[in-house]
Amino acid sequence: MGQLLKLGEPPQADAVITPAHLVQRDFGPWTEAVEKTAAALAATTVERDRQGGTAWTERQVLRDSGLLKLAVPAAFGGPEVPWPTIYRIIRRFAEADSSLAHLFGFQHLQVASVNLFGNPEQKALYLGKTVSENWFWGNATNGLDNRTTLTWREADGDDPAHFELNGIKSFCSGATGSDMLNVTAPRSADPADRVFISIPTDRAGVAVLNDWDNLGQRQTDSGSVTFDKVHVEPNEVLGPPGTAGTPRATLRTLVSQLILIEIYIGNAQSALLNAWHYTHEQGRPWFTSGVKRAIDDPFTQQHYGDLRIALRGAIALAEAAARDLQQAWERGDALTAEERGVLAVSIYEAKIAAARAALDITARIFEVMGARATAARYGFDRFWRNVRVHTLHDSLDYKLKDVGQWVLSGEVPTPSIYS
Amino acid sequence: MGQLLKLGEPPQADAVITPAHLVQRDFGPWTEAVEKTAAALAATTVERDRQGGTAWTERQVLRDSGLLKLAVPAAFGGPEVPWPTIYRIIRRFAEADSSLAHLFGFQHLQVASVNLFGNPEQKALYLGKTVSENWFWGNATNGLDNRTTLTWREADGDDPAHFELNGIKSFCSGATGSDMLNVTAPRSADPADRVFISIPTDRAGVAVLNDWDNLGQRQTDSGSVTFDKVHVEPNEVLGPPGTAGTPRATLRTLVSQLILIEIYIGNAQSALLNAWHYTHEQGRPWFTSGVKRAIDDPFTQQHYGDLRIALRGAIALAEAAARDLQQAWERGDALTAEERGVLAVSIYEAKIAAARAALDITARIFEVMGARATAARYGFDRFWRNVRVHTLHDSLDYKLKDVGQWVLSGEVPTPSIYS
Amino acid sequence: MGQLLKLGEPPQADAVITPAHLVQRDFGPWTEAVEKTAAALAATTVERDRQGGTAWTERQVLRDSGLLKLAVPAAFGGPEVPWPTIYRIIRRFAEADSSLAHLFGFQHLQVASVNLFGNPEQKALYLGKTVSENWFWGNATNGLDNRTTLTWREADGDDPAHFELNGIKSFCSGATGSDMLNVTAPRSADPADRVFISIPTDRAGVAVLNDWDNLGQRQTDSGSVTFDKVHVEPNEVLGPPGTAGTPRATLRTLVSQLILIEIYIGNAQSALLNAWHYTHEQGRPWFTSGVKRAIDDPFTQQHYGDLRIALRGAIALAEAAARDLQQAWERGDALTAEERGVLAVSIYEAKIAAARAALDITARIFEVMGARATAARYGFDRFWRNVRVHTLHDSLDYKLKDVGQWVLSGEVPTPSIYS
Amino acid sequence: MGQLLKLGEPPQADAVITPAHLVQRDFGPWTEAVEKTAAALAATTVERDRQGGTAWTERQVLRDSGLLKLAVPAAFGGPEVPWPTIYRIIRRFAEADSSLAHLFGFQHLQVASVNLFGNPEQKALYLGKTVSENWFWGNATNGLDNRTTLTWREADGDDPAHFELNGIKSFCSGATGSDMLNVTAPRSADPADRVFISIPTDRAGVAVLNDWDNLGQRQTDSGSVTFDKVHVEPNEVLGPPGTAGTPRATLRTLVSQLILIEIYIGNAQSALLNAWHYTHEQGRPWFTSGVKRAIDDPFTQQHYGDLRIALRGAIALAEAAARDLQQAWERGDALTAEERGVLAVSIYEAKIAAARAALDITARIFEVMGARATAARYGFDRFWRNVRVHTLHDSLDYKLKDVGQWVLSGEVPTPSIYS
Repeated sequence: MGQLLKLGEPPQADAVITPAHLVQRDFGPWTEAVEKTAAALAATTVERDRQGGTAWTERQVLRDSGLLKLAVPAAFGGPEVPWPTIYRIIRRFAEADSSLAHLFGFQHLQVASVNLFGNPEQKALYLGKTVSENWFWGNATNGLDNRTTLTWREADGDDPAHFELNGIKSFCSGATGSDMLNVTAPRSADPADRVFISIPTDRAGVAVLNDWDNLGQRQTDSGSVTFDKVHVEPNEVLGPPGTAGTPRATLRTLVSQLILIEIYIGNAQSALLNAWHYTHEQGRPWFTSGVKRAIDDPFTQQHYGDLRIALRGAIALAEAAARDLQQAWERGDALTAEERGVLAVSIYEAKIAAARAALDITARIFEVMGARATAARYGFDRFWRNVRVHTLHDSLDYKLKDVGQWVLSGEVPTPSIYS
Repeated sequence: MGQLLKLGEPPQADAVITPAHLVQRDFGPWTEAVEKTAAALAATTVERDRQGGTAWTERQVLRDSGLLKLAVPAAFGGPEVPWPTIYRIIRRFAEADSSLAHLFGFQHLQVASVNLFGNPEQKALYLGKTVSENWFWGNATNGLDNRTTLTWREADGDDPAHFELNGIKSFCSGATGSDMLNVTAPRSADPADRVFISIPTDRAGVAVLNDWDNLGQRQTDSGSVTFDKVHVEPNEVLGPPGTAGTPRATLRTLVSQLILIEIYIGNAQSALLNAWHYTHEQGRPWFTSGVKRAIDDPFTQQHYGDLRIALRGAIALAEAAARDLQQAWERGDALTAEERGVLAVSIYEAKIAAARAALDITARIFEVMGARATAARYGFDRFWRNVRVHTLHDSLDYKLKDVGQWVLSGEVPTPSIYS
Repeated sequence: MGQLLKLGEPPQADAVITPAHLVQRDFGPWTEAVEKTAAALAATTVERDRQGGTAWTERQVLRDSGLLKLAVPAAFGGPEVPWPTIYRIIRRFAEADSSLAHLFGFQHLQVASVNLFGNPEQKALYLGKTVSENWFWGNATNGLDNRTTLTWREADGDDPAHFELNGIKSFCSGATGSDMLNVTAPRSADPADRVFISIPTDRAGVAVLNDWDNLGQRQTDSGSVTFDKVHVEPNEVLGPPGTAGTPRATLRTLVSQLILIEIYIGNAQSALLNAWHYTHEQGRPWFTSGVKRAIDDPFTQQHYGDLRIALRGAIALAEAAARDLQQAWERGDALTAEERGVLAVSIYEAKIAAARAALDITARIFEVMGARATAARYGFDRFWRNVRVHTLHDSLDYKLKDVGQWVLSGEVPTPSIYS
Repeated sequence: MGQLLKLGEPPQADAVITPAHLVQRDFGPWTEAVEKTAAALAATTVERDRQGGTAWTERQVLRDSGLLKLAVPAAFGGPEVPWPTIYRIIRRFAEADSSLAHLFGFQHLQVASVNLFGNPEQKALYLGKTVSENWFWGNATNGLDNRTTLTWREADGDDPAHFELNGIKSFCSGATGSDMLNVTAPRSADPADRVFISIPTDRAGVAVLNDWDNLGQRQTDSGSVTFDKVHVEPNEVLGPPGTAGTPRATLRTLVSQLILIEIYIGNAQSALLNAWHYTHEQGRPWFTSGVKRAIDDPFTQQHYGDLRIALRGAIALAEAAARDLQQAWERGDALTAEERGVLAVSIYEAKIAAARAALDITARIFEVMGARATAARYGFDRFWRNVRVHTLHDSLDYKLKDVGQWVLSGEVPTPSIYS
């Protein structure tokens, strides 16, 4: 059952102490690194949620964890950890600190982007250095924000021919303090011809703004990045295949969707565990309940049953979707558009289930804790705020429509650069 | 449809500008005072929600409104406004600023307490001065907190016989900055013999702590009050009839429950109206929707339909409950325990419906606004935080059980000092 | 609490015996006639639900009740009962027997159709005879079925000029055994120029088929009617104003929608009352519950609380909508399109709320009764089957969209001939 | 996508034709037998649901399928098919015909009962003959019905010492037409000392009544069985270990619970597939939808998305629970009470999720089909009726409480003889 916190002490959202019958803490050879990192993130999460801004210390904790390279293929010196394990680690970190888990998850998304879009030389270079230099990646790739431009500049004197990148991107999670940055911009007049560019974040002309102040996911540094006459070498434009050259390349948004799913689930799991501790340590039975301990109240028991079932359902579909992704991933370039599409449906289904479960669980925990649990020092609303923000990343309405369209017609969703 | 805010400007949660087809703004002769006050409260509500603490300026706005006396009977110089109107004004203020609406609502609860518990002399004195002195009342009456004591002290020299009040009370909404304070304490060894005491807040030995920092209802000053050898004159103990002398006296908790209901509904209404403005002014259709304006998206339209229907359902039961209360109120001392009980069921039903609707509406508005609406400057999460905190005032589970028990057996809920 | 049925006897769904604290049985001067009729309908409702087909005896009970004329204006010799009372009577009958309540409700719809569409002479004739001859009206007006034709035939010998009606209509509730029939057909090549025709059901060429066999509302005789060279006199075509001449004329579909609403609510109410009796008389507590009577189980109590609150919410909006209709009705020809539209929204909102509540209540009652309550002899599934069928009359999805569209834009729903 | 039924022809609920992207039809070496049997069951299921009574022909189809022996261990000549596969076959049959699937499922429950409770000789005899004689088992073991008695009779002349069984049992699914019957009765004055008896159904004194007439699961022959001085040999009393001798023995109720779960899921799946066919073949878009095909309606698409996600969630937990059961099964006598308890929680969670999903799906399909789909000839309400009946087998409220109690305290549910 795990060691309980002492009575009167505010439960630490993310202390390593948890009811052992409710959670899995096995990440194979990475377990120790994961748990140590999770504990470090959790220790100050309530306070940092209040502050917002950049979590410099905890970003360093992630760097020091040795886990930034998990998704790098063995061919480039990485451990090539299967996606289901990576997602479970993201979920574990989301339980500890949802913002940092997002940064951690997006690290793997950037690695996957290079892996999917880059040509062999680019992969060797960027993925190899991700391992050797322990690079932390950020992004400026918001597909709904089309304010960047990429212009070809012919050689001029000492200045060789190159692209010039200008403009601004919003929602650039993880750009702050990153070593490398993935950026999207249109290569030609055709708006669909959008390319991914990998450049050092300290490249001249790149400015990472500190303008993220939102109601949840407060330390994801998801602010804006501006580009002022930024030099981009031709070989910094990823590809071929680039963003849409093959069905495999379009897996990127699906890798991303599963990160979001695990953020939802990690918050939901953390909410449930925090409520569990609170109920045990500080819960009081209602004065007409006739029971002496909060945990013996029949309605409270039913609520916990509901929360648990909702969480398990979300996890079951998320795990299935991660297995599906891994299978598709292993198909490599043989992956067909149809297979990619069926995978997308599986992930969309998991996403909708996880979003609903997480919104419900993170809102309902208060009903098993009571009014005193609303004291700001506990920060128990952060789970809902994090999930509320993150479930708006892309339209669940249209994801649901996509699923139904496939059910009815067998027609798979059209890949997009966004979601 | 009301004048729209300018594009790009963050919608003011509570600006007087509202879609005229969605809300009523008629409070009879009080309309001008109500709307002027609401506008003043709304102007800074987002900022003050962030700050927490005491809203000294806005408390003064309430004092200056001339509305603190609404519940005072004509016999004592008050306007004796019927309860349904008072509740609609509380709802309107909750739309503008949920915390201040709570303070305003509890003002009338304290006035009602004196009216229900006090003897004729006490009513004449306290209610008369509420009008003439424009008293703002606070409370230290938390029925779940039994840490106050009241001890009879015989005359000693110049010191006449009196009660001495000691101890502490939590959740003392409105105590800060109040003129008068209602306090509960046990009069004898019998814990059920709990009395209401009305004393000036500046009485020696009374200390109002500034220790309220919760995730919602952040400016309700619901912190603790301590009592250190506070002199209480015998005639400052309300009664007879006191707290439980008659069925009529037990109406107090029902007056209180309806205040909570209107806080929920006011927040839900404000959430809907704020979302409405945002969708109009800043909403973007999803990129695969095929429509040009967010308001033309069929799923967004359905969401608004749902939000509206949920809100209307809650209002319908709340209005019915307020009419029932007014009817019971007018029965005066003729009110029977059975009549009081049936009224309680009506109010409990309205409460459960309102709590559920408000939790749902305040969480779902984000789905019609999208990710950019999570910027902290809008403060759009405050509606959910306010409702989340306030719906925990007392156990909805046991209220629901009470309703079902009455449905099954006709047995009415037992009045309690708490809810 | 009402007299309880004897233990072991299957509860009669609709016996006059009901828990007095849960229902209103006051229909003013019509109370005795209503209750007598309801009791007669209820006596055999379970058996007749099983049989399906035409309820000849109970149709006669409705004729004998003296209630077929309720909606006829005083000017034509009728009692001109306000709509809210008529709807409450429909609800009461739906509690007793949902199919017969539908026939009864549609009687008033046909009377309203003549009243709204007819010219003064037609109103005097048809409404006058509805009172003097106690006419029972049926309909063949399904707006989604466009298989009737109306052709002008010039005088030919003895045969004067007339229209000839041909074709078929489906979903013709109440046609079987009716005295008069309202029929719709296109008057010209313009499909929007659809007219209402009032003819005797025994007119040569009219054949009422006995082909209704559905899973609910089994005795509504909602089968097909065929027309084979049926003579229609020019003055049997209602109008002016006809079906769309004025905003007032378009109230017909709203009158119809409120009938549906009351069918839902009546079934929900009956479901709750039947469950109540069953729980009292035959309910057994779960063997681990620790209580001796089913009515003392805390979860059962919560379920009843939920059922009650859902029902009350639906009734509150339905009553409000009926009041709104009455107000619009009294505006007569002064009614504007905008006023009609706002009324439509109010009714749509009530409809969606009622449909959801009724589907939920009629499905959930089993959870408070248990497995033995599924014996076919009780027929407790009929409530859900009735509601399930009737809530499909028109698309709730598009009604919800209409409400949301109005919320967002203030644009009222376009009247149609169907819903 | 599978071959579609011809337009205008009522979709056959359970025809082999299905949208291939939505369902799995792989049962390994049993696939052909399963699909052939399913098709035969499905062919007449609508008609037989209407009739009720005993499905003699289809019982024979099950006998002829060669699938009655699936659960018999290899040691006794059976194929020892793992539980997850058996459950998938039950689900497939429930899709075809819910009543026959129940009979089929309970066959394996009786086989498991002998396997769990019997001594080696009994297992060899009864399980061996289940294979060699193709025995079809019924039950008279309702744990909530305590009206049987078992009395020891000393030898009397030619009559050797034996037990005498008397009394009645209700809810005896599958007794009609069975070869063998499991019966429970108390062996001693201790009510907990209830034993399982395996006797031939044609034993003198056993009378299977034909008194099952319920609103769903209409051909499960779940009527009563009476026992009048029935001779029971001592070695016909199963054991040791008997019903509660070991943790392993208490797996029986969990085997049973998973059968119920698959009945729910099979109905839900069938509902979805039938709706799918109907929407394709007969669905009409709403007249204001602006689309030409029902499958292109955005709201219809969302509904299908919802139905699919609900179904997948239920299946995911059911499959996990079946795997858990198989693992526990393979532990044999080493299974601990704690392991059994954790398995029970997993199964309870799956059950609650499946029950809710199935109730929801089977009720909502009508919203994607419309009013014409309520024609009795389709029988589309049978899914809901089947699920509604079967989800009442035991109290979901207390199952939910059990789950919550375990979440909170780690305390596993107490095994009972019922559920």
